[in-house]
Amino acid sequence: MGSYKNGVVGDQSGTSNGDAGGAAVDKGVDFANYFCTYAFLYHQKEMLSDRVRMDAYYNAVFKNTHHFHGKAVLDVGAGSGILAIWSAQAGARKVYAVEATSMAEHARAVVKANNLQDVVEVIEGSMEDVVLPEKVDVIISEWMGYFLLRESMFDSVICARDRWLKPTGVMYPSHATMWVAPIRTGLGDQKSNDYESSMDDWERFTDETKNYYGVDMSVLTKPFSQEQKKYYLQTSLWNNLHPHQVIGAAASIKEIDCLTASVSDILEVKSNFSSTVTLQNTRLCGYGGWFDVQFRGRKEDPAQEEVELTTAPSVNDGTHWGQQVFLLSPPARITEGDQLNGSFSMKRSKENHRLMEAEFSCEIRQQSGELVPPKLCQFDENQVLMVTFSFAVSHQRTSPSSAQASEEFLVNFSPASLSLASTPLLNTAAASGDLPVYSIENSDHATKKEIGLLHSSPGGENAIHLIPVILFLCGFVLWIFSHPTKL
Amino acid sequence: MGSYKNGVVGDQSGTSNGDAGGAAVDKGVDFANYFCTYAFLYHQKEMLSDRVRMDAYYNAVFKNTHHFHGKAVLDVGAGSGILAIWSAQAGARKVYAVEATSMAEHARAVVKANNLQDVVEVIEGSMEDVVLPEKVDVIISEWMGYFLLRESMFDSVICARDRWLKPTGVMYPSHATMWVAPIRTGLGDQKSNDYESSMDDWERFTDETKNYYGVDMSVLTKPFSQEQKKYYLQTSLWNNLHPHQVIGAAASIKEIDCLTASVSDILEVKSNFSSTVTLQNTRLCGYGGWFDVQFRGRKEDPAQEEVELTTAPSVNDGTHWGQQVFLLSPPARITEGDQLNGSFSMKRSKENHRLMEAEFSCEIRQQSGELVPPKLCQFDENQVLMVTFSFAVSHQRTSPSSAQASEEFLVNFSPASLSLASTPLLNTAAASGDLPVYSIENSDHATKKEIGLLHSSPGGENAIHLIPVILFLCGFVLWIFSHPTKL
Repeated sequence: MGSYKNGVVGDQSGTSNGDAGGAAVDKGVDFANYFCTYAFLYHQKEMLSDRVRMDAYYNAVFKNTHHFHGKAVLDVGAGSGILAIWSAQAGARKVYAVEATSMAEHARAVVKANNLQDVVEVIEGSMEDVVLPEKVDVIISEWMGYFLLRESMFDSVICARDRWLKPTGVMYPSHATMWVAPIRTGLGDQKSNDYESSMDDWERFTDETKNYYGVDMSVLTKPFSQEQKKYYLQTSLWNNLHPHQVIGAAASIKEIDCLTASVSDILEVKSNFSSTVTLQNTRLCGYGGWFDVQFRGRKEDPAQEEVELTTAPSVNDGTHWGQQVFLLSPPARITEGDQLNGSFSMKRSKENHRLMEAEFSCEIRQQSGELVPPKLCQFDENQVLMVTFSFAVSHQRTSPSSAQASEEFLVNFSPASLSLASTPLLNTAAASGDLPVYSIENSDHATKKEIGLLHSSPGGENAIHLIPVILFLCGFVLWIFSHPTKL
Repeated sequence: MGSYKNGVVGDQSGTSNGDAGGAAVDKGVDFANYFCTYAFLYHQKEMLSDRVRMDAYYNAVFKNTHHFHGKAVLDVGAGSGILAIWSAQAGARKVYAVEATSMAEHARAVVKANNLQDVVEVIEGSMEDVVLPEKVDVIISEWMGYFLLRESMFDSVICARDRWLKPTGVMYPSHATMWVAPIRTGLGDQKSNDYESSMDDWERFTDETKNYYGVDMSVLTKPFSQEQKKYYLQTSLWNNLHPHQVIGAAASIKEIDCLTASVSDILEVKSNFSSTVTLQNTRLCGYGGWFDVQFRGRKEDPAQEEVELTTAPSVNDGTHWGQQVFLLSPPARITEGDQLNGSFSMKRSKENHRLMEAEFSCEIRQQSGELVPPKLCQFDENQVLMVTFSFAVSHQRTSPSSAQASEEFLVNFSPASLSLASTPLLNTAAASGDLPVYSIENSDHATKKEIGLLHSSPGGENAIHLIPVILFLCGFVLWIFSHPTKL
């Protein structure tokens, strides 16, 4: 609830809207929690600066203009209107660009500046309320949240599809897949330390509150510990993983056909998966989760050229979505050939349907037959290690997050920024919150501080390299003068 | 909307509650925006660690036990229950502790752990809805937000007073005063730079979006600039000012008698004030705003010992409220004896009644008769400099702010932390958002980067100090051997 939110809470009518899987959604609350974020040009710019995202949609449209030429198109959640404009540039007869926030006004200005006002009609309103004059041939939307389903925006796309897509219509994107893979990362150590130090701090606090102010607060130690543990260790983290951090094959846990999926199909994700460890003597620090979407058209009317947008760990093609990291604390020792049999489930938070609660359980079948038991794990009788850990999926995309959360995005900053419009580190880190800092984790165990030291090279520090040279010169001079007889 | 907010949106009934000065307040929205923050023990702890705040209330209660002994007390917004417990310890017959969030449950546990469950009754509910079995002798509440009125929580105290305080009852605190004073600060330069660099970034972005993706976004340059200017330069900043940064006498702009003030008295604050500059050849960089509250009892039943809680700039007694800084950009050159005639007005934001919009205007009457005109200012014919600048008061107390905003609290961190339970820098800065980092600005013109360099001293860097020594040794050796005849 920082200052950036001032003045954009908007519709506080308090009318209830939609179902979103059981819980009634208060529109005013939803705006305060969610939509207001997208009303800022700053956030639009961050998304528009994601080259991987932009290239995928750009190619999807312009390599498949047959889907757009002379057609009616609906852009759901148009933002600044870029997809609507591309659709028009690709030859659409008419484009309806629906945007819930006041960003619609800016989209209208951009449409006009690009001289497409006769083709693109920007409509400010929520998709669920909008009435179009015709059915459309294409629905295009960039609806994907962190780990695909966060934000639950696909609900609005489904609503649009069921009401406004012709029976022969095409979805852009057409398919989506969610992935998980076992990973190693230094984030868990760091978060464990943060948790420990917050508890040390609490102990001091309760001691002092008792001694100075005569009130015993120690009864709150347990709930405080739970609150902090949930925050530090049981909340998934945004991260841009390096492919080397993935230590076993990625497993698909959900496939969505955008043409046929219903809201009930995506309310909950449940999957069993297994993965064989591909690295010798390493640590299972948790799981990474990400997604792909594909632009394939539809069976009867396929894409001329299929395009894929992947948010998998990548050295050069990171996205603002990054990956979600689900920490296992403490990590488990594993090695090549060990088999990880996992199960995953995720459902919407009861309190906020745009947030998710996820749960992993993982069974480690060690090839060696030997067990290196991490704490907090249960054993069964077949030398099988049971690890159960549950998380809340965190970090709304492009939302100004809590400052506490923003720390995560500073952790492993590297110069491998892929931002179209590159921003200086300080500015980006401070200004973007959950936004694309495109951090690539270089070193498994490196902490923020270490990386800071590795990367920092203040001018003066280079001077130390002169010391051996000077010492050598010094020695040389001494050597010359110590042999005067030879001169 | 960071992860910390998960699962505490709470009551989404959408019923409208109260007036709050014209705009109807949606309860669900208010909870999502406001109350949920106070449901975290972490935030309670931060407030309870503010020694100045704690000492003031502690002394107010225990140096005036005659107000509490055998009396009925109401604690409005009880949080973890500390004021209710002190009231009971001071001899109250009965204490009603009303708390709107689930923190009430924790308060109940603390009350029981301190064996006061027969005296303190914790009631979970909003003050406006609660029904008490009797009228009370004392209302105690820590209702003050940033710059006193932010959060608009005093409305609930007024409601409690009008419904539940006996005609002879006493308010704790009894009085409040708001202050402003001209200041110098390096924050404005820093924010100007941030703004400039965000605009440079935007230019690159629009160029590249046009060149790579064929869409001209430059029509949004003006609204983007306005958005960024509002964010960087027209939003007040949390800061813990050093008294040396205050360059003229502080002026009182609002006095509130808590026993008689009505909501309409605090809906708007308007004041003219003047201040004479007390420092030679300096810059007017803006105004600082803060508040005091006093515990004086009431005329017919005064305090035995009056206590004051001030949040004025202080070297050793900073509070988590800090001061609000209203930047003037660019600053104006002023000097000792110049007279600043200002006017101030502040009203609640239409979109969120708990946020404020403030406006300053300031006329500089220079003693010298000479004018050093800052940009953007208008002149009148009497060699008077008109400076008009308006702001939105920012930063909800103890709220997890946007990461962008949190930067402000990292700027001038010094070791002068007054936190009862001291927290390591990284942890506090990352975890607290708007919370007490107790930064004291050491250097007027030092930017974040400069301070970083001043404070950083990585081991290797010290080695450069050896270079002159080695060079000197080298020279000495050369000198010795260049005079062989004298040996």
